[in-house]
Amino acid sequence: MSKITTGATMSLDGFIAGPNHTDGFDHLFAWYSAGDVEVPTGFPDMTFKVSEASAEHLRGLLERMGVLVCGRRLYDITSGWGGRHPMDKTVVVVTHKRPDDRPEDDENFVFVTTGIEDAIAKAREIAGDKDVGVNGGEIARQCFDAGLLDEVHVDLVPVFLGTGIPLLGQIKDGPVTLEGPTFVTQGKGVTHLAYRVVRK
Amino acid sequence: MSKITTGATMSLDGFIAGPNHTDGFDHLFAWYSAGDVEVPTGFPDMTFKVSEASAEHLRGLLERMGVLVCGRRLYDITSGWGGRHPMDKTVVVVTHKRPDDRPEDDENFVFVTTGIEDAIAKAREIAGDKDVGVNGGEIARQCFDAGLLDEVHVDLVPVFLGTGIPLLGQIKDGPVTLEGPTFVTQGKGVTHLAYRVVRK
Repeated sequence: MSKITTGATMSLDGFIAGPNHTDGFDHLFAWYSAGDVEVPTGFPDMTFKVSEASAEHLRGLLERMGVLVCGRRLYDITSGWGGRHPMDKTVVVVTHKRPDDRPEDDENFVFVTTGIEDAIAKAREIAGDKDVGVNGGEIARQCFDAGLLDEVHVDLVPVFLGTGIPLLGQIKDGPVTLEGPTFVTQGKGVTHLAYRVVRK
Repeated sequence: MSKITTGATMSLDGFIAGPNHTDGFDHLFAWYSAGDVEVPTGFPDMTFKVSEASAEHLRGLLERMGVLVCGRRLYDITSGWGGRHPMDKTVVVVTHKRPDDRPEDDENFVFVTTGIEDAIAKAREIAGDKDVGVNGGEIARQCFDAGLLDEVHVDLVPVFLGTGIPLLGQIKDGPVTLEGPTFVTQGKGVTHLAYRVVRK
């Protein structure tokens, strides 16, 4: 059964990036090069080197993941990941207007201009039996608000950023309770956790 | 060897209380009554009911803890925990002025009016070989800033509060990197984690 998940590397104080969206990554993603086990990413020149526990976790995630969903900001910040996402998956991009420099028929990116529900429906269609991964914070939050999110994955790292972008965007109607963790694995410099979203 | 530690139950978004200091506790402390194993607190009318994993963790903490350190706000909010802290330990209170309604010679509370360093020195003296537990956020932060903190314990619970009081107070000079976790144990509705403070 296909699940709609979101996940991110998160600081101990709950941030998935520094306040400028692109800072703090050296601290947050230190665990991607903290170990000895190589995990290929789909790009020949980009390989993670993590602990065996993290490698097993990442391999499982990659295998279960059928498609990704992101917002236009993440797409723009990463310049469309140079043409294809490093996880080697199709990305459904939620946007107001599709970019001019992309073909209509593109196996790398599918642009949906009619909101999060249509984007998730499109993503489900592409994913088949596999999972749908939604990022970053604001899009995950929209997905959560629409009652579409099933699971939250957290890669918790031992740093306090002090300020930044929260995992699920700015929560206005908290507290929001989850179930779990349904999964806990300790890697080097990171604790992998998964939580189930409680249906309202 | 005596360690200076701080610890708290923390939401997934990094808060140890809601914005008014006393809210959010029903969500944060749900794990204290989520299990079947009773852990006495020193008060006959106050017993935690937690999972076996959490019980073992709490027993270990209680056994290692020699004395507690807190700020005047926490002391006032709890009305001096009704006369004695539920962990049945002496509390060193950092304050500008000692309260009028407490005896000078008191095994329950020791008031230190000359700052965090003197408070920790007094606490070490009382603790002997045992550990010193510092709470809440702002006092732990002062302790951390003074280079006196050895360990941070986090009881991570699956709730997003959205806003509130951060574990180490408001970090102005982040990022702050810790080592670990040195300890991970999964209880029911809570993940117990411990991190080592990196000496500057």
